[in-house]
Amino acid sequence: MSNHFFSNKGPLKISKIIDLLKLEKNSIDQDQIVSDVKDLFYATETDITFFHSKKYKDLASKTKASFCITTKNLINELPAHCRPLIVENVLVSVSLITSKFYPESINDDFDFTCKNIDKTNFKNIVKFGQNVLVGENISIGHNCSIGHNTIIEKNVVIGNNCSIGSNTIIRNTLIKDNVRILDNCVIGKHGFGFFPNKKTNLRYPHVGAVLIEDNCEIGCGSTIDRGSMSNTVIGKNTFLDNQIHIAHNVRIGKNSIIAGQVGIAGSSIIGENVRIGGQAGISGHLKIGNNVEIAGGSGVIKDIPDNSKVMGYPAKNFRDFLKDNR
Amino acid sequence: MSNHFFSNKGPLKISKIIDLLKLEKNSIDQDQIVSDVKDLFYATETDITFFHSKKYKDLASKTKASFCITTKNLINELPAHCRPLIVENVLVSVSLITSKFYPESINDDFDFTCKNIDKTNFKNIVKFGQNVLVGENISIGHNCSIGHNTIIEKNVVIGNNCSIGSNTIIRNTLIKDNVRILDNCVIGKHGFGFFPNKKTNLRYPHVGAVLIEDNCEIGCGSTIDRGSMSNTVIGKNTFLDNQIHIAHNVRIGKNSIIAGQVGIAGSSIIGENVRIGGQAGISGHLKIGNNVEIAGGSGVIKDIPDNSKVMGYPAKNFRDFLKDNR
Amino acid sequence: MSNHFFSNKGPLKISKIIDLLKLEKNSIDQDQIVSDVKDLFYATETDITFFHSKKYKDLASKTKASFCITTKNLINELPAHCRPLIVENVLVSVSLITSKFYPESINDDFDFTCKNIDKTNFKNIVKFGQNVLVGENISIGHNCSIGHNTIIEKNVVIGNNCSIGSNTIIRNTLIKDNVRILDNCVIGKHGFGFFPNKKTNLRYPHVGAVLIEDNCEIGCGSTIDRGSMSNTVIGKNTFLDNQIHIAHNVRIGKNSIIAGQVGIAGSSIIGENVRIGGQAGISGHLKIGNNVEIAGGSGVIKDIPDNSKVMGYPAKNFRDFLKDNR
Repeated sequence: MSNHFFSNKGPLKISKIIDLLKLEKNSIDQDQIVSDVKDLFYATETDITFFHSKKYKDLASKTKASFCITTKNLINELPAHCRPLIVENVLVSVSLITSKFYPESINDDFDFTCKNIDKTNFKNIVKFGQNVLVGENISIGHNCSIGHNTIIEKNVVIGNNCSIGSNTIIRNTLIKDNVRILDNCVIGKHGFGFFPNKKTNLRYPHVGAVLIEDNCEIGCGSTIDRGSMSNTVIGKNTFLDNQIHIAHNVRIGKNSIIAGQVGIAGSSIIGENVRIGGQAGISGHLKIGNNVEIAGGSGVIKDIPDNSKVMGYPAKNFRDFLKDNR
Repeated sequence: MSNHFFSNKGPLKISKIIDLLKLEKNSIDQDQIVSDVKDLFYATETDITFFHSKKYKDLASKTKASFCITTKNLINELPAHCRPLIVENVLVSVSLITSKFYPESINDDFDFTCKNIDKTNFKNIVKFGQNVLVGENISIGHNCSIGHNTIIEKNVVIGNNCSIGSNTIIRNTLIKDNVRILDNCVIGKHGFGFFPNKKTNLRYPHVGAVLIEDNCEIGCGSTIDRGSMSNTVIGKNTFLDNQIHIAHNVRIGKNSIIAGQVGIAGSSIIGENVRIGGQAGISGHLKIGNNVEIAGGSGVIKDIPDNSKVMGYPAKNFRDFLKDNR
Repeated sequence: MSNHFFSNKGPLKISKIIDLLKLEKNSIDQDQIVSDVKDLFYATETDITFFHSKKYKDLASKTKASFCITTKNLINELPAHCRPLIVENVLVSVSLITSKFYPESINDDFDFTCKNIDKTNFKNIVKFGQNVLVGENISIGHNCSIGHNTIIEKNVVIGNNCSIGSNTIIRNTLIKDNVRILDNCVIGKHGFGFFPNKKTNLRYPHVGAVLIEDNCEIGCGSTIDRGSMSNTVIGKNTFLDNQIHIAHNVRIGKNSIIAGQVGIAGSSIIGENVRIGGQAGISGHLKIGNNVEIAGGSGVIKDIPDNSKVMGYPAKNFRDFLKDNR
């Protein structure tokens, strides 16, 4: 699985990686080649992976990677073929190595390959407005329309029967069929992930994408950030209202309905058939079950099981909330 | 009252409407002509109307419409000249028929009639920036300015002494005099109204408009959705700060002040001289009285009488709130 | 200290100012010249200042201004060389006078001096996208990139190694080095400050700027309003996520991290190393100390001392909040 959006500047010799991490040279064959950095699950024998929490020890024990950035207390969980590189802060080290493989994933400067769509072959198959810009190597299906001043950056894939509004920016995004993205959106920007540092924060590379499945609608002025290693996903037939913010690595199931100004923080997983009222907020790294209803204005700070209806901040069962707040 | 923004593809024969609703042919003269679909109040004898709740029985008893989409248990409220078409879900059926009369009201694709203002006669009467696009049949008063990259879609009406910012999109909107709309706004998009459906949600047509009265100001990055059948209205001399979301059918009275990031859900009616603090949210279908103050961050989930001052979520009298939350 | 962004249409004779304020002619030499309107601290002997609250009596006693707009009960606090002009509402009067000195500071019409960057000398030193517009008298350092459709209005200063996204608007702003401003932002618009008035609200002139210090990042769809008399400031190495609203006169210290959809109301001062979770709101005129953590979704309505961790609405110590809300 190569990265569709970011070109891999590898392979790197393991000696180079050892230097970058400021580690002692050791018994590893310094000329070994490393093709890519991937998570424990996706890494193959030519890759380096990383392992920073006991939570992932089962995945670690089965990884195919030849090298693993990890800490001293975790090395015994790795299989024999996987050589540990022991560091103090795994994620900072992964960030550094990822930025060497994928230097373009950090800064999100504008796509300078963009040109006016009327100078491309898309002019014959897309209905487009004025000043529409498209980058290199994009793909657009049949029966699509793209509004004025909209920018589709390089490598973006758009399916059939899609309608993209005006003044919208799309990058690092895979869009399936029958999707509507309205005006003034920004889809696919890097997430708000970095390591705070007194002098200058260290940006974490975001090499994931945004995946928008069939029949979705994304309202005006919304922002959906791409994933860090995996993808941010909006499931089939899920509708988002205006001014919504979906952070990196969030996954929303199918048939969900999310009202205006909702915010979902990084890495939360939202089930199917979920309804979220206006201005509700969901903290990061949570799991919201299927068929959940979250009242407008709620603040969700813990996991919510299937079929629940919650309200308030912190969000709890809506009947309890209303009783407590007469 | 013909629709200023959406062209009516009618008239339709009643036999066509009966077919679309998959009803049995009945004693109705199948060749009768229907000009338009309107609400109970505005419908004339050449129109079809709809009636889905006892709440509206007084209006129903006086409707002039010749046909009415309704349910079995409501037919006795209709006058003799109005023939009922009995369906299971009135609003879904109305949506279907409305979309036949007004097919352009559903998808909000960009306005392909737009061209650069410097190729139109407006270049002589409007002060405009670079890349300003205007659609067919718009009207702009004297002494107006329109910023860079702004898009005024077809049929929009702008009064005198108005200032429109840059990167703003305006459609299906009537703007009176001395109005300022700042940058990056989207005014007049369809509302977030649709019928959820497991395979693909059914979009409700929005044939209403946005009406912005004299002396208003709309802050940067705000979105105001147009009404479904009636209009979304911003009353005279009402000021909105940045990043505000006003949903479809909302009506705000005059001299109101609404701070940043406030959201007002669909069909709520806000009185005159109302002050709403930053990030407050107001649920749908509520009535907020005149001279009401709503503290920043509040969540309003029931009607608020005139001259009240409320705070919290759910919003209550501010003194009670502060006492309960020392 | 002359104003970098707004051209001063003064000097004005004091007789003209007395006329504008509808005051009686008095013993003042009517031909005296007034160069500028400034606050008590910055005013020099050729300026007029203003004094509207006892809070500022120490500053008032030391002002160098020759004239001061004030109320009857405050005149004894002024030094002998400073002649009072007694009015009913100081701020309304200051607003009126400021708008005479700086008429361009009120309406924020688009900058008509903008032209495409490829027609300027910046084409040789800046990496830029399509349709980038720049106003007169701007300054851009080395190694900067500016995305498609972005507008840099007149007099803006951008330092070295800055990356500005696409569809962004920047005016009345000073940007230092290594700053990233992402897509769809509006930086430097006038604040939401005006005097409510039944017929037509009176806009307060905003003659301040926005100052963004080294190493900052501003997320997509954010709005930062300029100050009224002083500046709105984003301190060194402070990162803002998407859809954030920073109102006029806010000052944020260095090394702070502010998550998505946060709003900070006018004139609040945020310390250094502060962390604010998503959707939190901070009322106006507050002081938030250093090293403060504010949980996502909180509503802060009073000052917060250094090193505190707060949560809820109204925000209180997070442990108390969690105990009270099990």
